[in-house]
Amino acid sequence: MVRASTPVPADPPVRLAEAVCSVIAEHGLEGASIRKVASAAEVSIGAVQHHFPTKDDMLVAAFEHIVRAGSERVARLPLGEDTADNLSRVLRELLPLDAARRREARVYVAFAARAATQPRLAAVQQATLTGIVDRLARVLEADAAHARAEAELLLAVADGLMFDAITAPQSFDPDRTAGLLDLYLRRLLGS
Amino acid sequence: MVRASTPVPADPPVRLAEAVCSVIAEHGLEGASIRKVASAAEVSIGAVQHHFPTKDDMLVAAFEHIVRAGSERVARLPLGEDTADNLSRVLRELLPLDAARRREARVYVAFAARAATQPRLAAVQQATLTGIVDRLARVLEADAAHARAEAELLLAVADGLMFDAITAPQSFDPDRTAGLLDLYLRRLLGS
Repeated sequence: MVRASTPVPADPPVRLAEAVCSVIAEHGLEGASIRKVASAAEVSIGAVQHHFPTKDDMLVAAFEHIVRAGSERVARLPLGEDTADNLSRVLRELLPLDAARRREARVYVAFAARAATQPRLAAVQQATLTGIVDRLARVLEADAAHARAEAELLLAVADGLMFDAITAPQSFDPDRTAGLLDLYLRRLLGS
Repeated sequence: MVRASTPVPADPPVRLAEAVCSVIAEHGLEGASIRKVASAAEVSIGAVQHHFPTKDDMLVAAFEHIVRAGSERVARLPLGEDTADNLSRVLRELLPLDAARRREARVYVAFAARAATQPRLAAVQQATLTGIVDRLARVLEADAAHARAEAELLLAVADGLMFDAITAPQSFDPDRTAGLLDLYLRRLLGS
């Protein structure tokens, strides 16, 4: 009973992966040194190296962590009968419409860009996109003739809005970004 | 007359910016050291530093170079009377549908991602997106009620397809990517 009342420390690799993401959000992927991560997580450099023998291991774990965080948030969303409403809810979770999602999207874009030259990050990115397309295709099946292609296009719309909002926030502020998503969904579903 | 028959060397900063892009295409932005750039351009490290006093200067010049290369290619496209056809031509130039454009898009995505933490790169990215949206809005004015919003959404579609094709090429191969663009344009223009 004593144990249950003691705060259980977060799983160390998860806490470290979270620290990696914080460092990347602030300093970019190029600034994510093992030293900075140790400092952000308030552990020794040796503790970081114990969990992540190489910097590559550290980055892959952090990429998987941030992707999982987004997926779990989407999985918890209550969905109803209305396809437009369901798609809007799911896709808004992927867009940088508030500070937390902006941080997540910045880190995500940095990792995805690095995936072009790092095969282990590329494998995570490939699996992530396939997972989202599968999910969107299931939501669309009832309403669209070519659900798979429509799901891929929908992902591209969301990723493009995210990419533009993260890299050119003056033009793509949250209201504008959400409005453009709605414009697309209205056209897709003819409502 | 002797001068005209002698090959004129490319403007050194342009040649160096091209070398920076080659290094980034192969090694990623994190691998773009002044040493590697000097080696790729076959000049001394001092020559690189003469033109680009800091690494930041080097990266900004290379980002401007690759963006200008894409814009000039688009500006040279012969456009006709058909809006769908014009949009398709312009946007295909932005998509990684062959080896040259894939290289360009990889470098572009790397720079744009870095723009999230580097203000000088962010200024180039902001100006680039505004320029493309302006151009698309002018093409769309004849056919779309809300040309500015439609142009922004169209840019997001193209950027999303580019981002997904660069980061998950197994799912988004050139045929699939071009097909998704056409699916969007057919829907936009109701043809």
